[in-house]
Amino acid sequence: MATLKSISALFVFLLLISCSSASHGKRIRDRRPCKRLVFYFHDILYNGKNAKNATAAIVAAPSWGNRTILAGQDHFGDVVVFDDPITLDNNLHSTHVGRAQGFYVYDRKEIFTSWLAFSFVFNSTDHKGSISFAGADPIMNKTRDISVIGGTGDFFMARGIATLMTDAFEGEVYFRLRVDIKLYECW
Amino acid sequence: MATLKSISALFVFLLLISCSSASHGKRIRDRRPCKRLVFYFHDILYNGKNAKNATAAIVAAPSWGNRTILAGQDHFGDVVVFDDPITLDNNLHSTHVGRAQGFYVYDRKEIFTSWLAFSFVFNSTDHKGSISFAGADPIMNKTRDISVIGGTGDFFMARGIATLMTDAFEGEVYFRLRVDIKLYECW
Amino acid sequence: MATLKSISALFVFLLLISCSSASHGKRIRDRRPCKRLVFYFHDILYNGKNAKNATAAIVAAPSWGNRTILAGQDHFGDVVVFDDPITLDNNLHSTHVGRAQGFYVYDRKEIFTSWLAFSFVFNSTDHKGSISFAGADPIMNKTRDISVIGGTGDFFMARGIATLMTDAFEGEVYFRLRVDIKLYECW
Repeated sequence: MATLKSISALFVFLLLISCSSASHGKRIRDRRPCKRLVFYFHDILYNGKNAKNATAAIVAAPSWGNRTILAGQDHFGDVVVFDDPITLDNNLHSTHVGRAQGFYVYDRKEIFTSWLAFSFVFNSTDHKGSISFAGADPIMNKTRDISVIGGTGDFFMARGIATLMTDAFEGEVYFRLRVDIKLYECW
Repeated sequence: MATLKSISALFVFLLLISCSSASHGKRIRDRRPCKRLVFYFHDILYNGKNAKNATAAIVAAPSWGNRTILAGQDHFGDVVVFDDPITLDNNLHSTHVGRAQGFYVYDRKEIFTSWLAFSFVFNSTDHKGSISFAGADPIMNKTRDISVIGGTGDFFMARGIATLMTDAFEGEVYFRLRVDIKLYECW
Repeated sequence: MATLKSISALFVFLLLISCSSASHGKRIRDRRPCKRLVFYFHDILYNGKNAKNATAAIVAAPSWGNRTILAGQDHFGDVVVFDDPITLDNNLHSTHVGRAQGFYVYDRKEIFTSWLAFSFVFNSTDHKGSISFAGADPIMNKTRDISVIGGTGDFFMARGIATLMTDAFEGEVYFRLRVDIKLYECW
């Protein structure tokens, strides 16, 4: 019985360790995504002539800028609101599976850099719900990571990382981003 | 003793499972809120004549818009900054229990849709601290979910979902939102 | 053997409790930071004359404001985009260890209050990656907390609280914030 008691004590001790480690911020967490999704979205910026096709518009600019041409100094200070179609491949004319909605800000004078906050909004048989993103986007890097800060519906309480890649860039009117979404918290 | 050893091995094994499942993104999580709060907030948009009462103002607009009248094309591109009173019921003249501060962007040309980022700021005997929100708000839906992306003070490290409902809408000047906050991570 | 079985049952029961408590939002969590970092960042606002040194610019303003002078009514409605140097101490001329990029909005008429969303972007031998922040900033309080809503690279999936303190304020052109970052979720 002495042996049994000591085993009992050992297990209670191990359980306590287990519990406390599980609740501490420093615990080892699994860096394999619990969900992974890849999408493309397409941004056509309003330039005064393409009102019909445009999916984005400059809505604010620094005092040296205006709202139909991206400002000098690497567009520093331009704020762009967008409602861009999402596709599964890199073809603008493929089925739109959702909308990327939000805004970006060009935020550096020496190089193209932006700060983004937007949501992917889905309402199809495949996905219902939204995924929200925020973070710095150093556009000139081949890939860059932003944060998945929340989700709703099928993506309830999601957190993770999205890796952005500029898949195409045509002058100052059109760009296409590939978004590789890796969720590490799924509920 | 052989039996005891095998039991020991079994428990250590179970503990490891317990730990690893607890640290993996896919673990079953509890979808009952750990805290639930319902508030109303009231947005009075500046229209050039109501400076005294206005709690919100258009601060950016697309090139076809201005800052005293919401733009055509479903207000696409209008950016509104607000500092709105929060009440416990749907009466604007009830005690103000906090302020809803932040901004929203109208982000679609075909239908009213917005993207929101704001905080509820409390400094009363009931609540001290803040709750921050972000997400897409398809205004025309009866209810829509946005993400609780963080909190401070009484809402330290909070995460969750807020269900918005337009409780009243008067022309382009006043609207009232009911916000049903469900926190799923409480510290 | 009956004793062994009952011990087994007890431990399985304890394990279940351990697992379920670990997955419930209400579990006791550790409020000691798993990582702590202190930085300063420096904001020099464009005023029409300091184009060379400015690190921030007003890009949107209410109808009664403009983009070279902060608006009346406590700057309500001014939106400022910034790309500010980060230093380890309070000297603007110290080594820049990263950039603070994003925007803030003045959002109250009666008192100086702002709402911030930005990222710290690091690319040095010490830190690679980014930390993103959002929240209400009641500027006139000595210290105020905002949320760390995500991170990338060295700060993969970070969450936490950042305590802001205005370390210097010179007219309407320069301010310096001390940012005490406490992460409570580290991966």
